[in-house]
Amino acid sequence: MTPRPFTTKDFTARMERAVAQATDAGLTGLLVTPGPDLVYLTGYRPTAITERITMLVLDRDHEPCLIVPTLERADAEAAPGVGAVTISDWRDGADPYAAAARLLAADGRYAISDSAWALHLLALQRELPASWFTSMTGTLPMLRAVKDADEIERLAGAGAAADAAYEEIVAARFAGRTEHAVGTELAGLLREHGHSQVDFTVVGSGPNGADPHHEMGDRVIVEGDMVVLDFGGLKDGYGSDTTRTVHVGEPTDVEREIHDVVRHAQQTAFEAVRPGATCEDIDRVARTVIEDAGYGPQFIHRTGHGIGLTTHEPPYLIEGETRPLVPGMCFSIEPGIYLPGRFGVRIEDIVTVTGNGGRRFNNTSREMRIVA
Amino acid sequence: MTPRPFTTKDFTARMERAVAQATDAGLTGLLVTPGPDLVYLTGYRPTAITERITMLVLDRDHEPCLIVPTLERADAEAAPGVGAVTISDWRDGADPYAAAARLLAADGRYAISDSAWALHLLALQRELPASWFTSMTGTLPMLRAVKDADEIERLAGAGAAADAAYEEIVAARFAGRTEHAVGTELAGLLREHGHSQVDFTVVGSGPNGADPHHEMGDRVIVEGDMVVLDFGGLKDGYGSDTTRTVHVGEPTDVEREIHDVVRHAQQTAFEAVRPGATCEDIDRVARTVIEDAGYGPQFIHRTGHGIGLTTHEPPYLIEGETRPLVPGMCFSIEPGIYLPGRFGVRIEDIVTVTGNGGRRFNNTSREMRIVA
Repeated sequence: MTPRPFTTKDFTARMERAVAQATDAGLTGLLVTPGPDLVYLTGYRPTAITERITMLVLDRDHEPCLIVPTLERADAEAAPGVGAVTISDWRDGADPYAAAARLLAADGRYAISDSAWALHLLALQRELPASWFTSMTGTLPMLRAVKDADEIERLAGAGAAADAAYEEIVAARFAGRTEHAVGTELAGLLREHGHSQVDFTVVGSGPNGADPHHEMGDRVIVEGDMVVLDFGGLKDGYGSDTTRTVHVGEPTDVEREIHDVVRHAQQTAFEAVRPGATCEDIDRVARTVIEDAGYGPQFIHRTGHGIGLTTHEPPYLIEGETRPLVPGMCFSIEPGIYLPGRFGVRIEDIVTVTGNGGRRFNNTSREMRIVA
Repeated sequence: MTPRPFTTKDFTARMERAVAQATDAGLTGLLVTPGPDLVYLTGYRPTAITERITMLVLDRDHEPCLIVPTLERADAEAAPGVGAVTISDWRDGADPYAAAARLLAADGRYAISDSAWALHLLALQRELPASWFTSMTGTLPMLRAVKDADEIERLAGAGAAADAAYEEIVAARFAGRTEHAVGTELAGLLREHGHSQVDFTVVGSGPNGADPHHEMGDRVIVEGDMVVLDFGGLKDGYGSDTTRTVHVGEPTDVEREIHDVVRHAQQTAFEAVRPGATCEDIDRVARTVIEDAGYGPQFIHRTGHGIGLTTHEPPYLIEGETRPLVPGMCFSIEPGIYLPGRFGVRIEDIVTVTGNGGRRFNNTSREMRIVA
């Protein structure tokens, strides 16, 4: 079932909310370059992000304006949110930064998209030496963090599709195949279950599982391997991201113990999710379980990250992030233990904050699955 | 035939050359974030470019140093050029910018990769308020522009593969199929001919051809259509990019005339390529042919762009770019004429500058091909 498409009205409301948030944060306006912020605010996703500047200017005093290369104008106009936006196009050879500067305040305070190219920011700073620039996430970290019902429907659908792919891959053979073969099959399953894009398919077997960002390699999986499966991509524009750690044949007692610690940490952190708990609270809950079991130094990353139009976005579940959870936030909970040279274990679900707790978008068993 | 892999020695020589160029340009050093500059200098291509900073610091006074998230350290170490680099890793929760600042001069002058995230640049500017930053392309535009023999071999191979895909697609049926169907077949052919990645497959039929960046849509191609085919991707890490404009059945006199003008412009510009001619010279030569034919206002983009690890990089063939051509430079020559609501024509080859002229990497016929 395809979700209801977002309309010009949806995008207009988002742009208005963004301007209101910017004003509250003491900003003159927002400078939004291609990437998830621009998709969120206009539905426009250029074919390629290049050295030719495309930038949406949002402020209190003017209608939204999209600066776009003449070449891309027709594509931009086809995006639903661009219907409510003035377009200012520029041709190869013109100076787009001088033109952009004329739309901005000489002494403005602007938040610019995190992934805006340094090339563009440096040129804007040169044109507007009295203006001040800050990062979107630093100043408006919550711009896209609280998802509405239509977005939650998409994230839940992406999670269910990832779960379906997992149930099929664990029925497949692991021993004797390369990580690459298993990962390629898994990527195919994600596409079969409706993903338009597969962003990562980690198959970390044996010692490779101890590298949290190992993708997949030529290692042949053997009986006795622990295998970390961490995979995701986009379905209907929204992200999936789930991890399960499986075992080829019977595990040892140590393997079972460590898997239990991670599972317990993940479960305890999930149960701590509720409005008003802070991001660092959830990280601490997971970390405490792992530290108490004596594996603190082997948990080498934060507990989770937000997810939406991208698979890494605020809120981040990390020490020092004291922001309170709000219903509609969606993020991963993914503690892990990594023993270099031996194996790794990670368990990850996407979770959304509800009125009185949390709801998981990934619902496959978190017990250690024995595969063939 | 797979080209010789680049070695640690190759990358070391590139890093030394980059530092020498930076010194000549009055810079303290270079800050290189993930993307083509980092691939060029180290062979390292992180799985994903994210909010976690990865940055190579190159300067006169220190060994090259790569700042990398702890999570990515093992992956980074596997890259051949990283063998000659000191690694400084940082863990989630640490402040990577303060750590980076300690490696930099408080009052330095640094060029930073064009596509470095604004998030990272703003943080470095905050840590080092007395330092000055500039864009890599603005200051060292020629860092990757002159290709060596191994790179030219790869670009020639990518061009030959694109040509082979073209010869097969023009033998296929066009009339009665959607642009999308033809484009998907073309993408498959590029992969069959060794492309690891397909970046674009423009199938601009009839009026869609008048939008230079139209990719492909649901329009059904019909007898009488002019069809712009512009396609490319990466083979052995280097880019292909070629355009031919074909016609379904017999063209009209006007269609034939416009195709001839573009072909003549492309040929004349190619013949103008030689060491010492400037980038804008080549643009002017192509533009003059089109202007003299009365279609100047319908040629709405620059004549070409450099190509290498990316499909858009310096040198750009555009008015105002007075840099002289040097043997080893590689770029597109791609004039076009666009008649809104009617059709478009573009012809594009990748060309390299030789000791006494130019050499094309695309060698399929530039005559208007009649397809079925």
